[in-house]
Amino acid sequence: MNEMTMERQAETVSPTYGVVDCDIHPAFSERSELARYLPARWQEHLRDFGLRTGNPFAGSMPYPRLTPGNGMRRDAWPPSGGPPASDLAFLQEQLLDPLNIEFGLLQPLAAGSSVFNQQFGRALCTAINDWQIDKWLSKEPRLRGAICVPQEDVEGALAEIERRASDRRFVQIAIPPRALEPAGRQRYWPIYEAAAHHGLPIGMHSAAYGSRANTGAGWTSFYIEEHYAFSNAAQTALTSMIFEGAFERYPGLKLVLVEGGFAWLPPLMWRMDREWTRMRNEVPHLTRAPSSYVGSNVWLTTQPIEEPENNRHLYDLLRWIGAGRLMFSTDYPHWDFDHPEHAFKVPLSPQDRRAIVRDNAISLFRLNAEAKARA
Amino acid sequence: MNEMTMERQAETVSPTYGVVDCDIHPAFSERSELARYLPARWQEHLRDFGLRTGNPFAGSMPYPRLTPGNGMRRDAWPPSGGPPASDLAFLQEQLLDPLNIEFGLLQPLAAGSSVFNQQFGRALCTAINDWQIDKWLSKEPRLRGAICVPQEDVEGALAEIERRASDRRFVQIAIPPRALEPAGRQRYWPIYEAAAHHGLPIGMHSAAYGSRANTGAGWTSFYIEEHYAFSNAAQTALTSMIFEGAFERYPGLKLVLVEGGFAWLPPLMWRMDREWTRMRNEVPHLTRAPSSYVGSNVWLTTQPIEEPENNRHLYDLLRWIGAGRLMFSTDYPHWDFDHPEHAFKVPLSPQDRRAIVRDNAISLFRLNAEAKARA
Repeated sequence: MNEMTMERQAETVSPTYGVVDCDIHPAFSERSELARYLPARWQEHLRDFGLRTGNPFAGSMPYPRLTPGNGMRRDAWPPSGGPPASDLAFLQEQLLDPLNIEFGLLQPLAAGSSVFNQQFGRALCTAINDWQIDKWLSKEPRLRGAICVPQEDVEGALAEIERRASDRRFVQIAIPPRALEPAGRQRYWPIYEAAAHHGLPIGMHSAAYGSRANTGAGWTSFYIEEHYAFSNAAQTALTSMIFEGAFERYPGLKLVLVEGGFAWLPPLMWRMDREWTRMRNEVPHLTRAPSSYVGSNVWLTTQPIEEPENNRHLYDLLRWIGAGRLMFSTDYPHWDFDHPEHAFKVPLSPQDRRAIVRDNAISLFRLNAEAKARA
Repeated sequence: MNEMTMERQAETVSPTYGVVDCDIHPAFSERSELARYLPARWQEHLRDFGLRTGNPFAGSMPYPRLTPGNGMRRDAWPPSGGPPASDLAFLQEQLLDPLNIEFGLLQPLAAGSSVFNQQFGRALCTAINDWQIDKWLSKEPRLRGAICVPQEDVEGALAEIERRASDRRFVQIAIPPRALEPAGRQRYWPIYEAAAHHGLPIGMHSAAYGSRANTGAGWTSFYIEEHYAFSNAAQTALTSMIFEGAFERYPGLKLVLVEGGFAWLPPLMWRMDREWTRMRNEVPHLTRAPSSYVGSNVWLTTQPIEEPENNRHLYDLLRWIGAGRLMFSTDYPHWDFDHPEHAFKVPLSPQDRRAIVRDNAISLFRLNAEAKARA
């Protein structure tokens, strides 16, 4: 099949099945919206001290204003007013209905997990989770929530997981990959143990929030570097969780790397395995090759999909990773939105396309029963 | 050509030309050896205070003792005593002669550029450079030095460059990629200006030394993670130098990324270009696509070469990068040594192999005249 034929085929596929979107960013209609979900003590704190975090984006939009629509899709501003993705009716009309979204997974980008005041962070996470139920999950059966937890305050994180885990509208636990320590350190294991116990994947959204800068050299000058370095934060978290033995200790632990790209994965797997072959004595708690944990415990969302000049190159990488590890995401309503019909400029087989766009997520997040009940 | 044929062909090529080895680590015969090159004031300081650096490896071997030969090739311990690569005669006998090394580039891994006391760092760099001349460059015409400079102390770095630049036995300027700030920041530009002015490439050796940890999450638990994350430090430095505009300001500036791998480069280039297409307003000082600076100003050494299960995958990546950007290196005397006959388990064309193993380095480091004079 030549290049032209491949592209035409990829664009003209019009699937009859639904889409699972693994990365939707719900927004507050106004700054005071979250405050209403906080106890009075923390409402006052927020009013008097604001959000103190190491993240330069906190309190302002994490996306540059020079990108289309102030960091948002230009057409995503709801006619009702308020920022993009703050109005359910418009989200339904613009995203869920036309794209045939069967399930849409919320990824709230609020600062609960990275404020310096950990008690405040705990209260913020509880508020964000209450807000998800109240504004989204209780009103739209296609949406699914992420349990936001204060990851540095493990006790608080566990309390929040226990509070939500029985509510099947929450399908994952959200923590940022940029923690105070590498994400595989044992201080975080109680969170992973709870996640495995409840069958809830850990969703690590690489962008925007976290206790640390993305790079070993600290904060970079440009958003364009920050945006690239999402993938480095994802790699740091992934390698740490593998080598510290988190997947070995909790075989049921599932990790989803969201918005960190995926083309970097094959070289990383080769390198980890090469080193492990020679230095496995350092990590005797691993019983198998590092890359094999990727194959059993790790998934990646597709957006922002890498775009080489020659699409064949991406196609090769995608095959090396395997379609079983990838899950489609739009990143709605952000400027670098991916559309399920146009994101894949590579010749996916119908089986692989369906796995990426729907089936992998249905299975990982245990949405089968609900999908069937609705059909 | 099938996989078997390819591998056999790659292994049976026996080139008639010399090899340029871009990464040899010379060692002190004993701990006091460097001290002798320091002024009395700093000899006393070293004796009384030692080396204070953020690097956990300083003062001990940066390689694990569990790898073959205590982090060294088992057979690299010289019969004369002392650590591997501390004895010129044995280096000649074990490396330069049998591998037909036409030029061998020294990469001293000493702590001059990362000690906290910057005045001490300046003195250490001068001592390391004097030691290179005295012990190696003045005694073996195949060896070439790297001007070690105290990168955080830019004035000291410039003084050291001026002191050595006219000595053609030094062919590059060595700084670690892990600086206190991202490597592209303007505070470091005087070093890059001097490098471009003198036609000396900047050699960034990813391993072992630097002011910072490799990852945004700080120091990782295991050497095996540290070793992988060399490539993240290299990526942080490279993207920072591109986006800050260092190559735009100094078109003659050449950067060599040493021991950071290379298979990660194509996905990085795709991603940088995709983002630049959308956000070039943030970096209006760039006149062309980010990846194009790689094509004009950046080289990478091959060791530690990535080793996928299927060599074809590495072959694909290597073709996407282009043989013109890669230069062979052994990393002698370290445990993860690459041999020029066996490192490339991919079917390189004779032209590409020669470019990687010899010609790219001959041209970049301007070794032509000397190569001719000797022939």
